[in-house]
Amino acid sequence: MFSLTVRDHVMVAHSFHGEVFGPAQRLHGATFLVDATFHRAELDDDNLIVDIGLATKELGGVLADLNYRNLDEVPEFAGINTSTEYLAKVIADRLAGRVHDGGLGEGARGLAEITVTLHESHVAWASYRRAL
Amino acid sequence: MFSLTVRDHVMVAHSFHGEVFGPAQRLHGATFLVDATFHRAELDDDNLIVDIGLATKELGGVLADLNYRNLDEVPEFAGINTSTEYLAKVIADRLAGRVHDGGLGEGARGLAEITVTLHESHVAWASYRRAL
Amino acid sequence: MFSLTVRDHVMVAHSFHGEVFGPAQRLHGATFLVDATFHRAELDDDNLIVDIGLATKELGGVLADLNYRNLDEVPEFAGINTSTEYLAKVIADRLAGRVHDGGLGEGARGLAEITVTLHESHVAWASYRRAL
Amino acid sequence: MFSLTVRDHVMVAHSFHGEVFGPAQRLHGATFLVDATFHRAELDDDNLIVDIGLATKELGGVLADLNYRNLDEVPEFAGINTSTEYLAKVIADRLAGRVHDGGLGEGARGLAEITVTLHESHVAWASYRRAL
Amino acid sequence: MFSLTVRDHVMVAHSFHGEVFGPAQRLHGATFLVDATFHRAELDDDNLIVDIGLATKELGGVLADLNYRNLDEVPEFAGINTSTEYLAKVIADRLAGRVHDGGLGEGARGLAEITVTLHESHVAWASYRRAL
Amino acid sequence: MFSLTVRDHVMVAHSFHGEVFGPAQRLHGATFLVDATFHRAELDDDNLIVDIGLATKELGGVLADLNYRNLDEVPEFAGINTSTEYLAKVIADRLAGRVHDGGLGEGARGLAEITVTLHESHVAWASYRRAL
Repeated sequence: MFSLTVRDHVMVAHSFHGEVFGPAQRLHGATFLVDATFHRAELDDDNLIVDIGLATKELGGVLADLNYRNLDEVPEFAGINTSTEYLAKVIADRLAGRVHDGGLGEGARGLAEITVTLHESHVAWASYRRAL
Repeated sequence: MFSLTVRDHVMVAHSFHGEVFGPAQRLHGATFLVDATFHRAELDDDNLIVDIGLATKELGGVLADLNYRNLDEVPEFAGINTSTEYLAKVIADRLAGRVHDGGLGEGARGLAEITVTLHESHVAWASYRRAL
Repeated sequence: MFSLTVRDHVMVAHSFHGEVFGPAQRLHGATFLVDATFHRAELDDDNLIVDIGLATKELGGVLADLNYRNLDEVPEFAGINTSTEYLAKVIADRLAGRVHDGGLGEGARGLAEITVTLHESHVAWASYRRAL
Repeated sequence: MFSLTVRDHVMVAHSFHGEVFGPAQRLHGATFLVDATFHRAELDDDNLIVDIGLATKELGGVLADLNYRNLDEVPEFAGINTSTEYLAKVIADRLAGRVHDGGLGEGARGLAEITVTLHESHVAWASYRRAL
Repeated sequence: MFSLTVRDHVMVAHSFHGEVFGPAQRLHGATFLVDATFHRAELDDDNLIVDIGLATKELGGVLADLNYRNLDEVPEFAGINTSTEYLAKVIADRLAGRVHDGGLGEGARGLAEITVTLHESHVAWASYRRAL
Repeated sequence: MFSLTVRDHVMVAHSFHGEVFGPAQRLHGATFLVDATFHRAELDDDNLIVDIGLATKELGGVLADLNYRNLDEVPEFAGINTSTEYLAKVIADRLAGRVHDGGLGEGARGLAEITVTLHESHVAWASYRRAL
């Protein structure tokens, strides 16, 4: 099995609700380093997993919708705890949508899975892996 | 599948027995960066894999029993090669025990697996992954 | 010249005012990895630059006042652009105050300078260095 | 399941053919950080996955055949796009051959899989995982 | 004194002449992680060292002239050993020219110095620091 | 001013004496990542700061004398707290001796300063800088 990862980042504000979150119930923020990994059983005719230029561009597009935002005010996230692991799934699902829409090229249709990892600091990160 | 990782570190002395270890048969030491990863199929009601505060606290508790020790003098490790991969298993098993004892909260009972990775330097690391 | 660095992190929300900031004029957030470096010409009688335990504790104390906050609502920062470089100075000045107040121990009075570096992402960071 | 990883690097020149590669069709180069991971269900009698000294030596041997080369002029790669993911497979296959030839010791015959990851920059890397 | 650093990367081929270079006399290549640091005594009216957007853009512009090139065929480098330390100076000098030409904004005229660091691998890097 | 850094590592056991060290008074250990930086005003005729091959070899030689040792039993360190900052000076001084003895080549006589940085973990490191 092959995999290719590209890294980008996003800077957001948000707050959490629930006692388990302690002081993180207050409005605060995070830089998330975002690693998008594309899994595939065999390489394509160019010896690629996916066009890295398109992968980088589409990851950037997904992140642009979140970047420099207060997630508490984004309608789609109303009443939702936008935890690191939850956001990993949001980004993975949106990337999967772009794969299905052809944004990563025809060759990307051979991809088997996507993993998205969000690093919230040098000592904590979360991942979500899903089929395509 | 989701996963959450927290990082801490531990500083120990130890020695190995067996020719395969070469100069590492002498008493020496290591800083191990310790990454504890918790795997889970679905998020809990708070959109979490596990309470990161409890995960960090319990990992710290497991490491406190090892930290600033000469492992050669710890009765539990008598006659045992405390290799990086072996210690990864020790820490994973102890963390698993704390999950079962409720130390990581009731929600942690939904965890599927634990992986522990120990980095012994910038050029070598070892992991152990087990079910819960 | 000797130097010792300890690393911690802080997660905040804030916004900027001024066209130069573009989309960062919106409320967003950041994880700052914070490296506090203590400079000294000669080691003390224990062969130390400063007690690393106290340095870590006092850096943690300075960061606790900022952590999980919306800096736009902190009175001290009213009307101020809390840029990465500005926050590096705020943290360095507060640490310097704690050195002068004896929080880092009597030995810390031999320190010559402090540098604070804030990493806002894997591709951008800022520092401020000052005398003690 | 256990795994052990050792890291080394290699510096090569190469070019790609195919419009998908854009400016990378020109002769250019890369430093690849190379992580070789050895997977195994149980530790051996020394509490090891594999002899880390032999693993490092054999990885170094595989890389020495590529290092400081223009891959476009290496007969084996004639007409082949030596993409990061393709090179990960080349290195994994050559390491697997050395395992089978006994280069990593008799104990290495218990290894289950090998993963090789090549980092082409701080924002892109690729892996190949195979059975032994 | 304040400093701000932005990171990018460049992938080039080149060869060296002189026995001291050993196998690096052959045509090979490198990924250079490039850190451009801007030093300044006081912050500007926006609490900035320099506009990070312009700094990133201009660093990218300087690197675009080198990226995906065989430096042996770039007329400006004919007969020159394009060592890591030499390239650090080339990039620093070109960035300094862009500062003087106003590419980093009027505020950048308050900058005191530039440092450029090139990482050729995880175990070797070189820097050049100059006045503006 | 130019600088070149090479990285290696060393694994040692040791203990400290003095209440300030708390639990580190017990025999424990550390992996130190060791960065040796060579500073120089101008490049040599090969466009180098120093021969990186010789720099790596001589750093390795200095570290070999410490590696896989219990520093408490090394006569030279009897009664001495081998703190991270102290060891940075030991390594810098020994490297300086090798420069003066010609181990880094005739060209190394143009070096101005050496800095040695020891990373004891991902959250703490110390440096010593000296003239040559």
